[in-house]
Amino acid sequence: MNRNYIRINMTFKEKLYEIIFEAETKEGKLFDEVLLLLIILSVITLSLESIDTFHVKFKNIFLILEVFFTVIFTIEYLLRIYCIKKPLKYMTSFFGIIDLLSFLPSYLEIFFPGIHYIISIRVLRLLRIFRILKMYRFSTHAKILYLAIKMSRYKIAVFLFAVLNIVIVIGTIMYMIEGPDNGFDNIPKSIYWAIVTLTTVGYGDISPKTPLGQLIASLLMITGYGIIAVPTGIMTYEINKIQSKELTVEACPACGRDGHDKDAIYCKFCGEKLN
Amino acid sequence: MNRNYIRINMTFKEKLYEIIFEAETKEGKLFDEVLLLLIILSVITLSLESIDTFHVKFKNIFLILEVFFTVIFTIEYLLRIYCIKKPLKYMTSFFGIIDLLSFLPSYLEIFFPGIHYIISIRVLRLLRIFRILKMYRFSTHAKILYLAIKMSRYKIAVFLFAVLNIVIVIGTIMYMIEGPDNGFDNIPKSIYWAIVTLTTVGYGDISPKTPLGQLIASLLMITGYGIIAVPTGIMTYEINKIQSKELTVEACPACGRDGHDKDAIYCKFCGEKLN
Amino acid sequence: MNRNYIRINMTFKEKLYEIIFEAETKEGKLFDEVLLLLIILSVITLSLESIDTFHVKFKNIFLILEVFFTVIFTIEYLLRIYCIKKPLKYMTSFFGIIDLLSFLPSYLEIFFPGIHYIISIRVLRLLRIFRILKMYRFSTHAKILYLAIKMSRYKIAVFLFAVLNIVIVIGTIMYMIEGPDNGFDNIPKSIYWAIVTLTTVGYGDISPKTPLGQLIASLLMITGYGIIAVPTGIMTYEINKIQSKELTVEACPACGRDGHDKDAIYCKFCGEKLN
Amino acid sequence: MNRNYIRINMTFKEKLYEIIFEAETKEGKLFDEVLLLLIILSVITLSLESIDTFHVKFKNIFLILEVFFTVIFTIEYLLRIYCIKKPLKYMTSFFGIIDLLSFLPSYLEIFFPGIHYIISIRVLRLLRIFRILKMYRFSTHAKILYLAIKMSRYKIAVFLFAVLNIVIVIGTIMYMIEGPDNGFDNIPKSIYWAIVTLTTVGYGDISPKTPLGQLIASLLMITGYGIIAVPTGIMTYEINKIQSKELTVEACPACGRDGHDKDAIYCKFCGEKLN
Repeated sequence: MNRNYIRINMTFKEKLYEIIFEAETKEGKLFDEVLLLLIILSVITLSLESIDTFHVKFKNIFLILEVFFTVIFTIEYLLRIYCIKKPLKYMTSFFGIIDLLSFLPSYLEIFFPGIHYIISIRVLRLLRIFRILKMYRFSTHAKILYLAIKMSRYKIAVFLFAVLNIVIVIGTIMYMIEGPDNGFDNIPKSIYWAIVTLTTVGYGDISPKTPLGQLIASLLMITGYGIIAVPTGIMTYEINKIQSKELTVEACPACGRDGHDKDAIYCKFCGEKLN
Repeated sequence: MNRNYIRINMTFKEKLYEIIFEAETKEGKLFDEVLLLLIILSVITLSLESIDTFHVKFKNIFLILEVFFTVIFTIEYLLRIYCIKKPLKYMTSFFGIIDLLSFLPSYLEIFFPGIHYIISIRVLRLLRIFRILKMYRFSTHAKILYLAIKMSRYKIAVFLFAVLNIVIVIGTIMYMIEGPDNGFDNIPKSIYWAIVTLTTVGYGDISPKTPLGQLIASLLMITGYGIIAVPTGIMTYEINKIQSKELTVEACPACGRDGHDKDAIYCKFCGEKLN
Repeated sequence: MNRNYIRINMTFKEKLYEIIFEAETKEGKLFDEVLLLLIILSVITLSLESIDTFHVKFKNIFLILEVFFTVIFTIEYLLRIYCIKKPLKYMTSFFGIIDLLSFLPSYLEIFFPGIHYIISIRVLRLLRIFRILKMYRFSTHAKILYLAIKMSRYKIAVFLFAVLNIVIVIGTIMYMIEGPDNGFDNIPKSIYWAIVTLTTVGYGDISPKTPLGQLIASLLMITGYGIIAVPTGIMTYEINKIQSKELTVEACPACGRDGHDKDAIYCKFCGEKLN
Repeated sequence: MNRNYIRINMTFKEKLYEIIFEAETKEGKLFDEVLLLLIILSVITLSLESIDTFHVKFKNIFLILEVFFTVIFTIEYLLRIYCIKKPLKYMTSFFGIIDLLSFLPSYLEIFFPGIHYIISIRVLRLLRIFRILKMYRFSTHAKILYLAIKMSRYKIAVFLFAVLNIVIVIGTIMYMIEGPDNGFDNIPKSIYWAIVTLTTVGYGDISPKTPLGQLIASLLMITGYGIIAVPTGIMTYEINKIQSKELTVEACPACGRDGHDKDAIYCKFCGEKLN
C-alpha cells in the first residue's frame, strides 16, 4: 500500500507521463534537467549560426547539431502525445503549440530551403523553459511577482491607455509641426518617435529640428520622466501588500482564482474551502 | 409610478439626451459603443492616410471615409446641441470644443485645399474617448490614479520647478562651455539638450565634445538618474495611502471636492453629509 | 503698543529691511513679486539674445533691456547692503554672491568687450528665485522633499560611491577592449561613456563595436536599469516616513536641526523645547 | 592588565598586523588614510596617462609616478603576507588577488613592453577602496543597502531571468524582420539591440527601419518602461522592512548569516545567541 508499491503497478504509459510531465520522482527531475540543457544549447547554437563567419566556417557542425536537436524534440513531442490522456487538449494548449514550433520549422527548411530567416522562429523553444521552471525553486518568488502584476493589471491598463493616447496625439501634432522634411514621414512613424521619446529610450534616428518641435518634445520627455512614477507606485503597493502577508499566493483549489486574504477560509469567488 | 412609466412620458428631446449623454440605458450604451468604434476607426484612417504610398494608392477610399466620418460627427454634434438644456455652456466646455474640432478641420479643407497638414488636428477627436470611458469599467482604477496624481500635484510642481531651474542653469553653462561649434547654438537649444539629458532620453543629436562639457553632462546625467526617485516616492506614498482605504475616491455631492478620509461622515470642505 | 505703533517708530533703514528681506507686509510682498518678474524677464531676454538671428535683428533692444536689468539689480544690491545689519556676512553668503553675480558680468563686458560667452553667467540670477519662493505657498511641500533628500543623504552617497566605482572600473575595461579605434579614446572618455550608459541616457556618440564590448555594455545597461531601484526605494521610505507624520518638518528653534519625531517635546540634539 | 600593557607586549609582527589590517588604533587609521589617498592618486594618474596628449608631454612624470605606486603597493603586499597568520588564505582571497593585480601588471610591462592596453587592469586597485571603507562611517547605511539587495536577490533573479527571455525572443524575431540590411547582422547583435532598447538606453547605433520592426520595438520599449516598476517595488519593500526596524543589520556571530528579526534572541539558522 506504500507509494513504491503503487508505482510498480503503474503501466508504462503512466510511468512515462510521470517522468515527462511531472518532476516529483528522481527520473522526472533528471528528464527536466536534460531537457533544460538541450533547450539552452539549441538556442545558443541558433544564435551562433546566425553569425556570418561562423555559419560559413562550421556549416556542417551546425547542420548536425540542428538535426540532433530536431530529432530529440520530435521524439519528445510524440512521447508527450502518446502518454497524455487528452492529446488534443495538449496539442492546442499554449505549451503544446510552443513544443510543436520548437522543431517544425526545421522540417520546413528541408522542403523550402529558401526560408532561412523564418526558421529562426525556433527560438520560441526558449519559452519551454518556463514549463520546466514552473516546478522548481524560484517559484514562490515568481508567484509573488506574477500575483503583483496580476493584481495591478487594471491600473496598469488604465496607465497604458493614457500613455497610448498621449503618444497618438503628440505624434500627430509633431507630424504637423516637423513634417516629412525632418524625418516625421507620416503619423505612424511620428507615433513611433513619440513612444521612443516618452519611454526615454531616445534612439535619435528621428529627432525634432524646429524650435517648436523641440519645445513639445521637451514637454513629452518631462511627462515621460514623471509618469514612470505611476506604474512604480502601483507595483510597490501590490508587492508590499502581498509580501506583508495580507494576501496568500495560493490559488483556490476549486476555481483556480487567486488573491485571497491570508485569513480567508473560503474562496471569495466560489465559496470552496481553501487549504 | 415606476421607472418605465416615467420614461414613456419623456419627450423625444429627453430620450435623445439620455441616449447621447448618458450610458445607463441599453440604447445609451449602444450609442457609446458605436461612437467609440467610429472614433478609433477614424483615427486609424487618419494615420494610414498620412503614409505617402497609401495616400496615392487609395486616395478615393480615404476621401469617402473622411466624408463619412465628418458627416456622422457633424450630425452627432448638432444633436448634442439640440437636446442639451444649456447648449452654449456645452459648446464652450472642454469636450464641446473637442467635439467641434473633430469635424471642423475637414470642412476647412474644402475651402482652403492647401492646408493638408493642419487638418491632422482631427486627431484630437481621440480625446473624445475619455468622455465615453468615463462611464465604464476601469473608472474606479482610473479614479485612484487620478486622485493620486491630484493629491501629489503640489509636490510634483515643486519637483518640476527644481528640474526647470537645473536645466536652465546647466543649459546656459553648457552654452558657454561648448558653444555653437559643438551644436549648442543658443541658450534655448542648450536647455533642450539639458532636458534630453536629465530625463535620460539622450537622442545624441547634440552631445558634448569638450572634456569639461562631458564632465558637467556626467553630473547632470547622474542627477537625472537619481532624482527620478523623488516623484516615484511621492506617487508611491499617495497610491499607498488611497489604496489602504484611508481615503475614499468619492467626491462630496455638494461641493464636488475629493480626498476625504474613509471614515469621514461630513465633507471637510463644506460640511455636507457624504454618502 | 500695537504692531502698527511699533512700525511707525521704525527707522527708514528698518522699514527698507522689512520690505526687501521679509515678505510679511504688503510692501514686502509687492517687492518680491516685482523682483520675481524682473528675474524671469531678464533670463528670458538672456536666452533670446543668444539666438543669432534675434541678436542681429534686435541688438539695440537687447542692449537697452540689459542695461535696465543691470541698473535695477545694482540698486537692489546696494540697498540690501545699506539696510542689513551685518553687510559683510550678507556679501559673503551664498545668496549674497548670487546677487552680485547677477549684475557684475554686465559691467565686465563694458571693459572687456570680447568676453561675450562669459557674461551668460548672469543666468545664475535665476537662483535668486529660491530666496523669494522661500517665503511662499509651496514651502511646506518643498520642505518635505528637502527633508526626504536630507534624511537619505548618507544612503544616496553610498549608492553614488558604488556607481562611481562601477563606471571607473567598467570604463577602464572598455578602454582596453574597444580602444581608440572605436571611439574609446582614453580612460576619462570611457568613463564618460560608462556614465552615459549606466544612467540609461545613451547618446550613441560613443558605442561599443566589438562583440565582447557589446556584452559588457549589455551587463552595464542591465545593472543601470536594475539599481535605479535603490535610490527610489530609499526615497520612497523617507517620504513615507515624513508624510506619515512620524517626523515633523519644523526645525529646532535653538540649534536649527530638523528630523524630529512628531511627538517630540524637546530637541533630541540640544534639548531645547520645541514649538 | 590594561589595553596599553597588552600592546607593549605585542611582537613587531602583531603590531604590523594591527596597523595594516585593522583600523582601531591611531596608526591603523593613518595607514588606511594614506593608502586611500595613494589608490585614488594612482587611478587618477592611470586615467590621465591614457590621454594621448598628456602621455606624450609628461611621459617621464607618468613613468616615475607609476614606478613609485608600484613599489609602494609591492612593499605593502609583502608586508601583508609577512604579518598575517595564514598567508596562503589571504593570497587566494578576493582582496588578496585584487592587491596582487594592483601592481603585477606594471612588472609585466617591463618584460613585455607591447602590452600597453593590458596594464590598464591596474584600475582594479580601485576595488581596494572597499576594504578600507569597510571599517568607516558609512558602513551602517551601506549595510542596509547591501542587506536590502541580498534579501531581494531571488526576486531580482526571477525578474532578470524574465528580462533575459524577453530580449532573446524579441532579439531573434527582430533579426528575422529587419535582417542584416538594417543593421541586425546576427542574433547576438539583435539581442544586444533588444537590451539597449528594453533598458531604455537607446544608443541609436542600431534602430528598426521597417514599420513592423518599429511596431515591435515600440512594444518592447513600453514593456521596458513599465517593468522597471518591478525591481523598484521589490527594493522599496525590502528597504522599508529593514528600516522599519523589523530586521537588524547585525549578522550572527556564529554562522555569519544575517536577516534576523529585531526582537530575535537566537540565530534562526544556527541557534547561536545573538548580541
